[in-house]
Amino acid sequence: MNYPLYSDEFFMNEALREARKAFDEDEVPVGAVVVSQNTIIARGHNLTETLCDVTAHAEILAITSAENYLGSKYLNGCTLYVTLEPCLMCAAATKWAQLDRLVIGASDPKAGYSLVQGEVLHPATKVETGILGDISGEMLKAFFKAKRENH
Amino acid sequence: MNYPLYSDEFFMNEALREARKAFDEDEVPVGAVVVSQNTIIARGHNLTETLCDVTAHAEILAITSAENYLGSKYLNGCTLYVTLEPCLMCAAATKWAQLDRLVIGASDPKAGYSLVQGEVLHPATKVETGILGDISGEMLKAFFKAKRENH
Repeated sequence: MNYPLYSDEFFMNEALREARKAFDEDEVPVGAVVVSQNTIIARGHNLTETLCDVTAHAEILAITSAENYLGSKYLNGCTLYVTLEPCLMCAAATKWAQLDRLVIGASDPKAGYSLVQGEVLHPATKVETGILGDISGEMLKAFFKAKRENH
Repeated sequence: MNYPLYSDEFFMNEALREARKAFDEDEVPVGAVVVSQNTIIARGHNLTETLCDVTAHAEILAITSAENYLGSKYLNGCTLYVTLEPCLMCAAATKWAQLDRLVIGASDPKAGYSLVQGEVLHPATKVETGILGDISGEMLKAFFKAKRENH
């Protein structure tokens, strides 16, 4: 599918590519990209099993990579595209990074950050949800269905 | 100061050693150790400035290191000693890790995880606070005082 260049769908599609890499590596399929001035400066996909590390979520890896690229602890002016609503850990990481904009695919009613009350994100972070959320949701559903059938 | 072997103060003193390393490296002085069966299996101190990475908190580094050491994503049976109350990011990381026990030095009324309402930690995680909290608090105070005077 082709999406308009530099649209939210265009960049979310790139995050979905990352999620597919996770899927192929038998990881819960979540992907993320960080975009600055219409350029992808970092990519990440869930690697918790591969790295044996609960902190190796797509967003954490992408944030670390983006900050290294920029040589800055802060992601002002950056957008993080992530295929699934971030958990509390990742949402809080975007707060420390003073992320400008967070674009979410599918929502996560089980482990999403919006489950808790209180200021989780940075007050300056703008949030958009539901961008290609159906595609992300279908991939997650297929992953967990295959997992159940193989057990 | 000598503390009884294997006591909470003994291990918190080791976390304070880590915090002092951070202090000496001009990082906000927070340190952590992970203990399993009375043995320190991982150590970490805040390296956010050095690594240019907001996720490089003492706890995240110690958790990643402990999981690598154990070859397991889970820290059941482990205690995390940290000199300052974890932020939301680090508290949520302990939840993913199913941490057995969290021992905290000083509380953090500005950025501690207890600021938000809702289930942040794993329900099985036991929490102890105020272990050598005064020493940790004094170190943090001295750090920020020096920062202010140098600006």
